[in-house]
Amino acid sequence: MSANDLSRYDQKLEFILRSAAQIFADKSYHSTSMRDISRATNVSLAGLYHYCKRKEELLFLIQDNCFGRVLERLEERLVDVNDPVVKLQIFIENHLSFFAANMAEMKVLSHEAESLQGDLHAHVSGKKDKYTKLATNILQNVHSPEDGKVNLTVATYALFGMMNWIYNWYDPKGQLKVSDLAQNLTQLFLEGFAPGSVNETTNKLRRQPENLSIWRGVERSRG
Amino acid sequence: MSANDLSRYDQKLEFILRSAAQIFADKSYHSTSMRDISRATNVSLAGLYHYCKRKEELLFLIQDNCFGRVLERLEERLVDVNDPVVKLQIFIENHLSFFAANMAEMKVLSHEAESLQGDLHAHVSGKKDKYTKLATNILQNVHSPEDGKVNLTVATYALFGMMNWIYNWYDPKGQLKVSDLAQNLTQLFLEGFAPGSVNETTNKLRRQPENLSIWRGVERSRG
Repeated sequence: MSANDLSRYDQKLEFILRSAAQIFADKSYHSTSMRDISRATNVSLAGLYHYCKRKEELLFLIQDNCFGRVLERLEERLVDVNDPVVKLQIFIENHLSFFAANMAEMKVLSHEAESLQGDLHAHVSGKKDKYTKLATNILQNVHSPEDGKVNLTVATYALFGMMNWIYNWYDPKGQLKVSDLAQNLTQLFLEGFAPGSVNETTNKLRRQPENLSIWRGVERSRG
Repeated sequence: MSANDLSRYDQKLEFILRSAAQIFADKSYHSTSMRDISRATNVSLAGLYHYCKRKEELLFLIQDNCFGRVLERLEERLVDVNDPVVKLQIFIENHLSFFAANMAEMKVLSHEAESLQGDLHAHVSGKKDKYTKLATNILQNVHSPEDGKVNLTVATYALFGMMNWIYNWYDPKGQLKVSDLAQNLTQLFLEGFAPGSVNETTNKLRRQPENLSIWRGVERSRG
């Protein structure tokens, strides 16, 4: 879908969400006011309330969009893949590519996980649980001769930790390309989790350039 | 040093800092007011300003104490250790033990790294850089037959990521003991970073029970 396919309403909403994500990432959700977002977007307060009833709704839409897009693309890419090692490789590459192309949004996902309440929190948590379980299932199927040395829960969250921590140090515009980052982390994790399972196919993941912004109205981003 | 060795002033200051760390962890530094801290500690606003001139000073003292204690204990434990693999093992165990015993403070370190300004920021950043370089140096000396496959910078931050992410999922009071967590992460990381370097000595790290709170006035904590 390209920007042209989005209604003007949706385009404006995405613009507001992207700006809000940046401000939340910079100064935290709690200390951002609707007035701050109004100032940054040049949309009047009354105008903002036309797009969302309250600030929490913005945070919800950002988080829901993030998990939604990452999960959707992952499921598409895993169709027809049977080798668990290749599945894991795709999982890592997919996660890191989205992360690197949406650093502000991903920081908001990490830092503001507990800032939503009630139904909104439950909805996002549901998607997060689904995503986490998908990761655990993939890991469970990665066998190796030395299997079972590392606790599966520890391994799952160690993987998320090494991937999600990149917002603290990684510069997507720097020398290390996302594809190299993904290959390094895949090598590190896979060799540690299932010694001997890194094979020739592991390094041959083909990737078409694609739009990896979680926002539909943003054309071709770095990836 | 025990609680008795601390002056009443220091004890009170530590109590304020520990309470502030918990509130910063719960609702973020930016949206916490001195009034919130006054309410939580039952210390009057005027009383609080006797211990620190402004909120930023509290954040600085928490962060500075954290890195200070973790670094100090690590350096003590590394004296007389020459085997790089054992050094790495001690590094991981030390980091995780402190983290697990001071979850609120460590979350504040992670989330509020950019909330300090000027000299205070520079001072904490200096300690953080020193700690990061220490980790990189240890990794650099861990050799293996398959050396050089994983970029050293990626490996360093992957290690910090898998360790620091635990505040999102790990319950120090749960079934998985910190020592087991440390052993799992050491196994996972070491086997991934330097295949074949995990040996018998890796699993035999002896640890005396000790006070692992970053606060001196807190007696024997879980560890």
